[in-house]
Parts: sequence; structure tokens; C-alpha cells
Amino acid sequence: MKIAQREFHVTTRSRTEMVDVTRQVEAAVREAGIPSGDAIVFCPHTTAAITINENADPDVVHDVLLALDEMVRRSNPGFRHSEGNSDAHTKSSLVGCSAQVLIQEGDLVLGTWQAIYFCEFDGPRSRRVIVQVRGEG
Amino acid sequence: MKIAQREFHVTTRSRTEMVDVTRQVEAAVREAGIPSGDAIVFCPHTTAAITINENADPDVVHDVLLALDEMVRRSNPGFRHSEGNSDAHTKSSLVGCSAQVLIQEGDLVLGTWQAIYFCEFDGPRSRRVIVQVRGEG
Amino acid sequence: MKIAQREFHVTTRSRTEMVDVTRQVEAAVREAGIPSGDAIVFCPHTTAAITINENADPDVVHDVLLALDEMVRRSNPGFRHSEGNSDAHTKSSLVGCSAQVLIQEGDLVLGTWQAIYFCEFDGPRSRRVIVQVRGEG
Repeated sequence: MKIAQREFHVTTRSRTEMVDVTRQVEAAVREAGIPSGDAIVFCPHTTAAITINENADPDVVHDVLLALDEMVRRSNPGFRHSEGNSDAHTKSSLVGCSAQVLIQEGDLVLGTWQAIYFCEFDGPRSRRVIVQVRGEG
Repeated sequence: MKIAQREFHVTTRSRTEMVDVTRQVEAAVREAGIPSGDAIVFCPHTTAAITINENADPDVVHDVLLALDEMVRRSNPGFRHSEGNSDAHTKSSLVGCSAQVLIQEGDLVLGTWQAIYFCEFDGPRSRRVIVQVRGEG
Repeated sequence: MKIAQREFHVTTRSRTEMVDVTRQVEAAVREAGIPSGDAIVFCPHTTAAITINENADPDVVHDVLLALDEMVRRSNPGFRHSEGNSDAHTKSSLVGCSAQVLIQEGDLVLGTWQAIYFCEFDGPRSRRVIVQVRGEG
């Protein structure tokens, strides 16, 4: 088994935003030189997340962020956390702080319409993403 | 390390539906001949998902789908995506497009009440599920 | 590739609760003696979940549980499941029954503010958590 770990940064520009990081993950997989296995894309932050969703129409990203905003309101009279970002923490647990992607013949195994997104829920901020690539050398 | 990849199809019959695919995943694990490790069950679609939930009472599946429908309304005056399935994309990111199952002594490590479900959020459609089995040979 | 599996128990005290299990996962990783790889933290229950979120201010946990309660109401006239815990099953699929954590130089790779939580959605109960550690020996 071979394991390689890479890291990259994402700079977000809005409070909520989905940034396509598929190319950065592909680059990490290429650098790892592991043609068969999987990659864990892990976000070490508690007000952000990683997801896989539509890569073609940017309106999908807009709509997903809107639906999340309506499900988890930013202001809630019951919230106690003084930083005012409990909505972001909740979204992070809903979407999840990692995604797993399969690798075959050196390429990511993604559906035609799938991209990997870094989800910012409390930006703008500078963020880290860790990619662990594992498999057969 | 041994890695084996299998694929199967799911034909859905409704717009939203949860299809128990535990047997298909078990078959993929048996075919792989990997007695110890894990299986990644990956859905290469952006309006569907994979989850693990109750296998006994079909009313649970009904109720989970109902709760998701109420959380993420299909029609929202703020939605921009012209295909009218932004609710399905949102549910896909909430539930997640993959699940990970442990394998021990050739069997899936699932709780008594756990089954693996393919979640259709924009059917009916013909769908693919990829199973990557990894472990010790 | 080395694979080791450990298990621990969590006793919950309320209907909904998030219990920090980072130390138990760290102990499982140390016992496994696998310095590089990953750990799958898997919950074999369908009314509970595993997530990674803020470790510092307990108000975050309070607020995340509150937001989930408001998103998925316990009582819904459309629910059919006779046990009255369909909200818990729904939250389980939203948050997910497993989390994946990277291991480097024998330590969990977690962000400064990240802890691993067992999420109880239908307690109080006695619960199991399985940790599979995988990697290079």
C-alpha cells in the first residue's frame, strides 16, 4: 500500500460559497503517482465542508447554497454561541468535512456532471484542504 | 493491498425513492474475494445519494423521504437552475454521494437494523453504483 | 497494508446529545500501532451518527442540535413509523453514520478546533462505535 498526502489552500470571497477544487485534487493524485485506489479530500475546518455536485451550470451551486441558507437560518433566538456562526457549524456537519473519490488508471472516477467542491459557510477566509491518496503503486 | 472495483445498476420508479442495495454490495464484496477491509459505495450522479438506514420497517424510508421533501422544497422562487431539480442537487449534498462499509471475515460489518440505500431524488431514472473493495487478500 | 479494528461504547443521557469521542478514537489508533493511514469511525445504529465539529465552546454543540431539531421536527402528521423516532432516522442520514480521519506520524490529522462526535438522536441508550484503522505498519 502506498500513501501520499498533499495540501492546498482556498481563498474564499463571500460568507457562503462553493469553490470547485477538482483540478487541485487531480493534481494531488497525479503528484502522488498512485494509479489505483482512492483519495480522501479532508477539510480541517468546522465552518466549511467538502461535497461533490454538478459541475456544469453555476446556478446549481447558487440554489444549493440558497436551500441550505433557508434550512439553517443564520440568526436563531435559541442560538448561544457568541461568534454568531452556528449556522455554519450546522451546515458543516450536514454536508460533512470530507469526501472520498475513487482513482482508476490514474484518473478520478467521477460522473459526467460531478465536481468536487470546497464549501465555505463562514467566509471570506483563507482555508486548507488536505488530500490523502492511497492505493497500489 | 488488494483493490477491486465492481458496478451495478439501479432502476428507479418514482421521483424520490430509497432502494435497498445491500445485497448488490454484498455480492460485489464476495466477488472481490477480499475478506478484511472496506467497501466504498459511490454514486456517480448529482441528484442521488447513498445512505445507511433502517432495513426493517419500510415506513422509515417513507418518513425520511417525507422529512427531506419538507426540508428542501422542490419549488423555491429563489431557485435559478432551469432543470427544476435544485432540490435533488441539495439533497444529494446533504445525504452524500458515497458510504463506507467495513468488511470483516468476508462479511459487511453492519448493525442489526442497517441496510445500504441508493437514494433517488430526481427519478425515475436508470442509475449506476460503483463499489470499490479494498483490503487484505 | 495493515488493518486493525477496535470498538468502544458510549452511554448517552438525553434524547439528543453530541458526545466527544476523540480520545477513544485516538486510543484505538495508538493500540493499532499504524502510524500512517486513516481511521473509519463507524456507528452501527440507524438513529445516531458520527460527525466532526468544534471542540472548544460547548454552545456550538447546543446550537447544532437545536438547528437539527428545528429542521426535522419530531412530530409530523405525515410520519407513519410507529416508533415515533423518524426524526432520528432522518438526522442519521443527514449527518451520516461514519467519519473518516487521517493519521500521520501516529496522530489524528484534525484541525485546531475539530473533535470527533458521536451524535445521539434517540437516546438515552447504550451505543457502540467501531473504529477501523488502516495503513502502513
